[in-house]
Amino acid sequence: MKDLGLTRMVKVEVVVRADDADVVRELLRAAGVSGWTSLTGVSGFGHHGNHEGRLLFNERSGLVMVIAVLPEQHGEPVVAGLRQLFGDRPGVMFISDTWVSRPEYFDAGPELR
Amino acid sequence: MKDLGLTRMVKVEVVVRADDADVVRELLRAAGVSGWTSLTGVSGFGHHGNHEGRLLFNERSGLVMVIAVLPEQHGEPVVAGLRQLFGDRPGVMFISDTWVSRPEYFDAGPELR
Amino acid sequence: MKDLGLTRMVKVEVVVRADDADVVRELLRAAGVSGWTSLTGVSGFGHHGNHEGRLLFNERSGLVMVIAVLPEQHGEPVVAGLRQLFGDRPGVMFISDTWVSRPEYFDAGPELR
Repeated sequence: MKDLGLTRMVKVEVVVRADDADVVRELLRAAGVSGWTSLTGVSGFGHHGNHEGRLLFNERSGLVMVIAVLPEQHGEPVVAGLRQLFGDRPGVMFISDTWVSRPEYFDAGPELR
Repeated sequence: MKDLGLTRMVKVEVVVRADDADVVRELLRAAGVSGWTSLTGVSGFGHHGNHEGRLLFNERSGLVMVIAVLPEQHGEPVVAGLRQLFGDRPGVMFISDTWVSRPEYFDAGPELR
Repeated sequence: MKDLGLTRMVKVEVVVRADDADVVRELLRAAGVSGWTSLTGVSGFGHHGNHEGRLLFNERSGLVMVIAVLPEQHGEPVVAGLRQLFGDRPGVMFISDTWVSRPEYFDAGPELR
């Protein structure tokens, strides 16, 4: 990817109830994330927590996927914040490597945090 | 990602006709996958199989993307099952690395398989 | 992933205004990409370019995500073309590794370029 002049970033995909999407976006903004993409038309089933014996989502529609791409140094507060959020709200997050062309677009800078 | 306390998993993204989404979800469940996310509002074009000379999808709407995240040991039956499914149904799958915060949510456990 | 009989490819996810989706798809086709998946129901916010002081997207809906999976050798023209496209149109792209089962489906072949 470096051959393509790209910069490695962290991609965070979060699936939550539509009602909770604003909380997720607030958390991202507070952690210095400068943008996101939201997908509607999302439904989910599972995932089971064996130690809990309940479903997070039961083929429920009305979910939203929020996708944020951020510099690795913002990963820790975002992951920690989402983990805490999922303590009392149903949701899952998937964290992946991704590469972008214009890394400065994905860092709000300290004055916006 | 390990620094963030995350666990590596396999992400499977499947694009199929809406009519075939239940077959995909049944296959996932049978392979021990404990949850999935479905996206509607999906259309697709291609992909060409040169040896077949036909399109899999012809700018067709009414497709669904099913996203499942699973422990690596469930990867083999899921990929084998999907490969067989695509023998007589149009569809594509993309397999990626991803990391999650609560790995136990993504493993249904043997009693549910 | 190689254990699963899969082949590594490049996944390109592009978020643009719905009006610009055809330009993206034309660019992909010209670069030898044989198929794509489009998601509607997409909205976006940000990303900030600090040197520009403006938002790319302002919680705007009516966006589209175009997902293309291509052999690594097609990556360079696609990334270069999209970078140029984003010079005068709002948009972001995320480039990731992914693996597929039938690599020949993702290469249109020279006769189609």
